[in-house]
Amino acid sequence: MSELTHFDRNGNAVMVDVSKKGETERMAVARGVIKGNAAVFQAVKEGTVKKGDVLGVARVAGIMAAKKNSELIPMCHLLMLTSCGIEFMMHEENHSIEAVCTVKTTGKTGVEMEALTGVSVALLTIYDMCKALDKGMVIGEICLLEKTGGKSGTYRREDESDD
Amino acid sequence: MSELTHFDRNGNAVMVDVSKKGETERMAVARGVIKGNAAVFQAVKEGTVKKGDVLGVARVAGIMAAKKNSELIPMCHLLMLTSCGIEFMMHEENHSIEAVCTVKTTGKTGVEMEALTGVSVALLTIYDMCKALDKGMVIGEICLLEKTGGKSGTYRREDESDD
Amino acid sequence: MSELTHFDRNGNAVMVDVSKKGETERMAVARGVIKGNAAVFQAVKEGTVKKGDVLGVARVAGIMAAKKNSELIPMCHLLMLTSCGIEFMMHEENHSIEAVCTVKTTGKTGVEMEALTGVSVALLTIYDMCKALDKGMVIGEICLLEKTGGKSGTYRREDESDD
Amino acid sequence: MSELTHFDRNGNAVMVDVSKKGETERMAVARGVIKGNAAVFQAVKEGTVKKGDVLGVARVAGIMAAKKNSELIPMCHLLMLTSCGIEFMMHEENHSIEAVCTVKTTGKTGVEMEALTGVSVALLTIYDMCKALDKGMVIGEICLLEKTGGKSGTYRREDESDD
Amino acid sequence: MSELTHFDRNGNAVMVDVSKKGETERMAVARGVIKGNAAVFQAVKEGTVKKGDVLGVARVAGIMAAKKNSELIPMCHLLMLTSCGIEFMMHEENHSIEAVCTVKTTGKTGVEMEALTGVSVALLTIYDMCKALDKGMVIGEICLLEKTGGKSGTYRREDESDD
Amino acid sequence: MSELTHFDRNGNAVMVDVSKKGETERMAVARGVIKGNAAVFQAVKEGTVKKGDVLGVARVAGIMAAKKNSELIPMCHLLMLTSCGIEFMMHEENHSIEAVCTVKTTGKTGVEMEALTGVSVALLTIYDMCKALDKGMVIGEICLLEKTGGKSGTYRREDESDD
Repeated sequence: MSELTHFDRNGNAVMVDVSKKGETERMAVARGVIKGNAAVFQAVKEGTVKKGDVLGVARVAGIMAAKKNSELIPMCHLLMLTSCGIEFMMHEENHSIEAVCTVKTTGKTGVEMEALTGVSVALLTIYDMCKALDKGMVIGEICLLEKTGGKSGTYRREDESDD
Repeated sequence: MSELTHFDRNGNAVMVDVSKKGETERMAVARGVIKGNAAVFQAVKEGTVKKGDVLGVARVAGIMAAKKNSELIPMCHLLMLTSCGIEFMMHEENHSIEAVCTVKTTGKTGVEMEALTGVSVALLTIYDMCKALDKGMVIGEICLLEKTGGKSGTYRREDESDD
Repeated sequence: MSELTHFDRNGNAVMVDVSKKGETERMAVARGVIKGNAAVFQAVKEGTVKKGDVLGVARVAGIMAAKKNSELIPMCHLLMLTSCGIEFMMHEENHSIEAVCTVKTTGKTGVEMEALTGVSVALLTIYDMCKALDKGMVIGEICLLEKTGGKSGTYRREDESDD
Repeated sequence: MSELTHFDRNGNAVMVDVSKKGETERMAVARGVIKGNAAVFQAVKEGTVKKGDVLGVARVAGIMAAKKNSELIPMCHLLMLTSCGIEFMMHEENHSIEAVCTVKTTGKTGVEMEALTGVSVALLTIYDMCKALDKGMVIGEICLLEKTGGKSGTYRREDESDD
Repeated sequence: MSELTHFDRNGNAVMVDVSKKGETERMAVARGVIKGNAAVFQAVKEGTVKKGDVLGVARVAGIMAAKKNSELIPMCHLLMLTSCGIEFMMHEENHSIEAVCTVKTTGKTGVEMEALTGVSVALLTIYDMCKALDKGMVIGEICLLEKTGGKSGTYRREDESDD
Repeated sequence: MSELTHFDRNGNAVMVDVSKKGETERMAVARGVIKGNAAVFQAVKEGTVKKGDVLGVARVAGIMAAKKNSELIPMCHLLMLTSCGIEFMMHEENHSIEAVCTVKTTGKTGVEMEALTGVSVALLTIYDMCKALDKGMVIGEICLLEKTGGKSGTYRREDESDD
């Protein structure tokens, strides 16, 4: 039960054998947050309206990274994503920007890692584009919100509020 | 002062012109944390000793990702890293694993993003290899600890304890 | 009717959801042209015969680029190409070299972009290998000649002669 | 004089030896055009204002492709770009969109190919995002406008108007 | 019978058309060997036990390279690997280290090249990590041990002992 | 003396710190051999003359792989190659094809791995293109012939004949 599936019985890392698994429709949603100072928050917020669309660039970066996931995470299988999108929510109260990445595939394994990678790279891109304003930004609360499909079925994160 | 340097005066994203900057020795240190349940923590801890070296795989993934940084973050310049390493600290008290990535270059821009990307992908790899034990793991506290070199000089994060 | 399918209702770029589409056999043919001076035309023509096979290198580059298409075009889905080839025609009358790229897949979306990317990179490679002879070469007339398969069915470009 | 520099004396393709060349500041500007129907032109034009920023996505794609140039064009040297930007001009009169890509480096060879690749992928991205409106779009007039630096010095395209 | 399948009737390289082939379960096993001096052999052997896990890094590199195979070998089709693992055997008698890579897919073509690429890059990684101890290491005996699935059926290398 | 330089004192893999090393001109030559049956040898030999240029494709693949070396070998530094070429020799007596890859750079570390990777991928490409004729081909004798430049100076393999 408490075994790491990515290692064989000799402790060697392996790409898990999914050859006997059927192709099913799968979906995963991940999210994460970046917190900066007021200048960052303001610049990103204005940028989306009239100049310097930080979130637009970050969205493209996140989607492209989700597609690259299997090149980044060593034991991940390549999957053909059938859909990928990233939404951002601006939280004025604590100057944080939340990213939510939703990924779908029809395949033999799930797309949790694609969604998490998409979120991570989108947030790193925001950091990059705003770091002249605040080097102290922190990226966090990166987690899986939901997954559906596959043998292990549906997972839904219970309480988001106290990560 | 509060300008986004990655956009031109028309608000178009650009790779910042660093052609006039000199090549200097630069260094950056970033860190981040992943928190899982007791089963994850135990498996990773034992793995490093006798079987299933999760951290060894995560370290390789993080270093390779740091080298790939400019392919992931759209406006980042390619830099030839002169050094890259990742260390992990196991924090028994809250079942968290901390990753610290140190990157060096001799170049015209800094390696903050390389260090942050290295940390992020190392932590995502831990998530991937342990997600069979706990889908609720959270990655967070990803931030720049320190940078040296370049015109903007040295940055050192002041208080780590309350991110 | 006049909607851009790569954006959601909020105007955010998304990888279009094709999860409900069936896998069908699809094919696309694209072409393009590069025009140089007489020296370029002669060098390429002789090269294919006895030394310096410019078109051989360009063909390999184009095929490899077609496979990389989803890494280059942000909202493109990854597809497993079942066939890819590039043919060149030398047009003596205006010193132009025409490239035609044919791509097939069995998948949920079409391979128009793969064929167009294959043509583009093949022509760019010719430019690269001949630019010492003529920096003024022009690449043009890149267009889709034909596509088959998928819900939108067959497309055939009507009149090639007046692009 | 009329020799192809990318082949050795036996006609084998080689990456040209630039080991004895000094590092100089270099710049290149390339451009290209995509022509579609009125629906495409209108959608792109409106998109930049309020929803569906086609040009924003295309710009990111082009810049990322310029950085990838040496992976696409077989005999190109890797160069560390010090600057890269893409501008678009909307030409109402013929429903064409022009892309101009400017690239800089400090290196041993020029960045003509990077600029041309940046333009090509930016235009291909526009094609991709608008192809639901018009499959008949044509990409053309891709050429080098200007280069500076290096032993071969400055090149400036003489007459743009009659490509 | 004795035709090269990767060329069309004009002698042009093509990615072979597999669009009419069915998807079947396929497997391939390849192996190879690296021979170094006693210092290399000892360092690798001890490393796996207590410090400097050369084989752990080489295994990750080999698995990641197997996934990248279609980017490296020009006419290879992209395949979604359903499994990939690499085992190492230490041969004390001649200071050689043997790598065996096993790859599976469900697809239209076989995974021989993926297995061979996995082995090659794993052995190159060992070379890289040990080259400070012995630049004279030799990599060899890289061959296909077995393949199953597909129209050409099963292949099993007959006599390993005298390569 | 017998230490693995790619591990720190805790046994963790690291990209070796070369930040204090000067940039010097470096060169490396590697070679390897593939042996097939008579049909393979004949097909490759004829191919280079009139149709199906196996070696032309393999050369392009090898050069492109040499440029990708740092993406494949985890602890390798990225280097800007100033030259790369691959030559093939056909050995009629034992139906073997020899590949020799020569790489240059001006940098802080050597290009041995680039040359070895170039050779390996060139030979794998020959295997791929000829495997319909002979699945039993063996790749071997991959080794460094020579390196110059850098602190460790010149290395020259002494006796090629008995690998």
